[in-house]
Amino acid sequence: MKIISILGSTGSIGTQTLDVIRNHKDKFEVFGLSANSSVDILINQIIEFNPKIVCIYDEAKYSDLKSKVDKLDLDYNIELCYGIDGLNTIADAKQNDILLTSVVGMIGLIPTLTAIKRGTTIALANKETLVTAGKLVMDEAKKHNVAIIPVDSEHSAIFQCLVGENTSDINKIILTASGGPFRGLDKETISQMTKSNALKHPNWSMGQKITIDSATLMNKGLEVIEAKWLFDLDIKKIEVLVHPQSIIHSMVEFKDKSIKAQLGTPNMKGPIQYALGYPQRLDSQEDGLDFIKYNNLTFEKPDYQCFPCLKLAFDALEKEGTYLSVLNAANEELVYEFLNDKIKFYDISNIISEALSSHDSINNPDLNQILEADKWARRYVNNKISKLI
Amino acid sequence: MKIISILGSTGSIGTQTLDVIRNHKDKFEVFGLSANSSVDILINQIIEFNPKIVCIYDEAKYSDLKSKVDKLDLDYNIELCYGIDGLNTIADAKQNDILLTSVVGMIGLIPTLTAIKRGTTIALANKETLVTAGKLVMDEAKKHNVAIIPVDSEHSAIFQCLVGENTSDINKIILTASGGPFRGLDKETISQMTKSNALKHPNWSMGQKITIDSATLMNKGLEVIEAKWLFDLDIKKIEVLVHPQSIIHSMVEFKDKSIKAQLGTPNMKGPIQYALGYPQRLDSQEDGLDFIKYNNLTFEKPDYQCFPCLKLAFDALEKEGTYLSVLNAANEELVYEFLNDKIKFYDISNIISEALSSHDSINNPDLNQILEADKWARRYVNNKISKLI
Repeated sequence: MKIISILGSTGSIGTQTLDVIRNHKDKFEVFGLSANSSVDILINQIIEFNPKIVCIYDEAKYSDLKSKVDKLDLDYNIELCYGIDGLNTIADAKQNDILLTSVVGMIGLIPTLTAIKRGTTIALANKETLVTAGKLVMDEAKKHNVAIIPVDSEHSAIFQCLVGENTSDINKIILTASGGPFRGLDKETISQMTKSNALKHPNWSMGQKITIDSATLMNKGLEVIEAKWLFDLDIKKIEVLVHPQSIIHSMVEFKDKSIKAQLGTPNMKGPIQYALGYPQRLDSQEDGLDFIKYNNLTFEKPDYQCFPCLKLAFDALEKEGTYLSVLNAANEELVYEFLNDKIKFYDISNIISEALSSHDSINNPDLNQILEADKWARRYVNNKISKLI
Repeated sequence: MKIISILGSTGSIGTQTLDVIRNHKDKFEVFGLSANSSVDILINQIIEFNPKIVCIYDEAKYSDLKSKVDKLDLDYNIELCYGIDGLNTIADAKQNDILLTSVVGMIGLIPTLTAIKRGTTIALANKETLVTAGKLVMDEAKKHNVAIIPVDSEHSAIFQCLVGENTSDINKIILTASGGPFRGLDKETISQMTKSNALKHPNWSMGQKITIDSATLMNKGLEVIEAKWLFDLDIKKIEVLVHPQSIIHSMVEFKDKSIKAQLGTPNMKGPIQYALGYPQRLDSQEDGLDFIKYNNLTFEKPDYQCFPCLKLAFDALEKEGTYLSVLNAANEELVYEFLNDKIKFYDISNIISEALSSHDSINNPDLNQILEADKWARRYVNNKISKLI
């Protein structure tokens, strides 16, 4: 029996993680759950999974949560908490075998570090953690001998392809990208695209932030950075390949030019279950991939002209340091404002580019320097946006 | 330094094996070589690779080989031999780290068993060995703790996908098939096809026997049988998928419905090098797979109506016993006569089917019973053919 806590249990990854746990009740037990602000979903999860500790990130929702939990009249003690301290309390629990972090944005960083110091295996669905502080997090993981198991389908694919192989034999990894909803359109057309166009992802059903990141290809850029840290790779060994059907989840080419790929239906339950079960594979009742249905897999080069965010990510990774925190924080703020209809599609890449140019980067930053760069970038971006409006 | 002997060194696989060895002279040394009848190619191989023992299978060519070797005036002792005894002498040499068997047809069986008893790793490119005597060979390999490493691209792909995985987690393996030169044609058209049509394989450059087997899809049938023994799988866990581009060399679906695939250009040097280097991957200077060139991978169901040999192979495997030896021996004889323009395309499957129906199979046969069934099938087939002509 593995004991699991989930940060971000009411989001897309969080609820699918609970689906996996529901299907394997003999293998997993829930210890802690956290949500940003969705009290009612959290209440239902408490009823079903009996967590011992529950956090609502939004302090304003705490009293609502508390009164609703009191009404449940649970037959066991439950600890309720809120804010970043609450997330940290869950992350620090010695009971956890695995902490699955699927919060959105860089708030995942500190609880992840807390759990690593506790020696808890991390199932990582929060890519911003490695983007903003990849070196720091992986160094800590090494120091505490903690496994970081990716939940992203692309990184899970690479992780699976590397089972039993030597990472020193990697010639390159090939991260596949669906290309997002604007693939194949010209730049002029894309520049007019709104939030509602961007939220129509062709293959994957995901949260709003990641769906916009998929439309700009920043999502793939963040994955490139995540892959660099996760697999300790030179940037030259990371390639992006557009594969609109999202059936090949990613690939590894070894030094003998043999390529291994991991394939499946576009469904996050596979990578989630793999991360929770690792090193064991667990049964799945989901349908397997039907090659007669998906009988045509195609590939294209990514279009760096129409999707400058991908290039910006490679550029920031080349320079490393706090450029990566700036890239990530600026992007978070800009996507948020795009979702609020405050800015246009290409404002995202334009303002990230300006922020990177204006930033004085620090090499090998410590946590405070990362948090400072993050704050700086958010201020810089919001200042820019206020001038646009 | 690994010491390698090659049975069938002048054929397609044999010469490509020597290409691999030539590119890794610091890793491999040649001990023994054998050819069926190509004396002159063998002489060139002797000059380049300095084998200590050389066999010509065709006894009639022995004196030619001997006189040409004498003229080389070698500065070391070389042993020359012929026939099945010669192959066995090479296979039995205690110097061998690896015996690569790439002879054509079931003559590979006895030397393979000899090498297994000697404890020598087998790099298996002779699929008839496992088809006719899979259980016997794998039982011997287990008994002597000998690794059988497949050289066929499909089985090498599966072998690579299984590195670090548990074979008990396999849900199914998916053997890909190019579909051969007659894919998509109707049965009437195929029935008129001659040797020269059949020898035009779309993707792979191979020997004549295997090229005809690819046109009938018997090649895939033999691979299904080989896979069953090599990976100890239930027949229900083996699936054939037509993939005309031959880029995905085969796949494994695990019980969690995650699929791993191995991909590469259609080139046998990859699987050969993997088998010789295993468990290490060695560098390759070959070009990697270009997904912009191969930007469209397609899949189809196999057509059992037009290609009855594939069905016959599944049927024989279902029944096991000496049916498998009959399938293989009948096919060898019929392909040989098809290459001699003595019979038509569908005579191959028709006569195999008749041979299987007429055969009294023995379960769990020993070597003599296998050899007897083999002989019986050849006699049966030749008798049938003589009546056709």
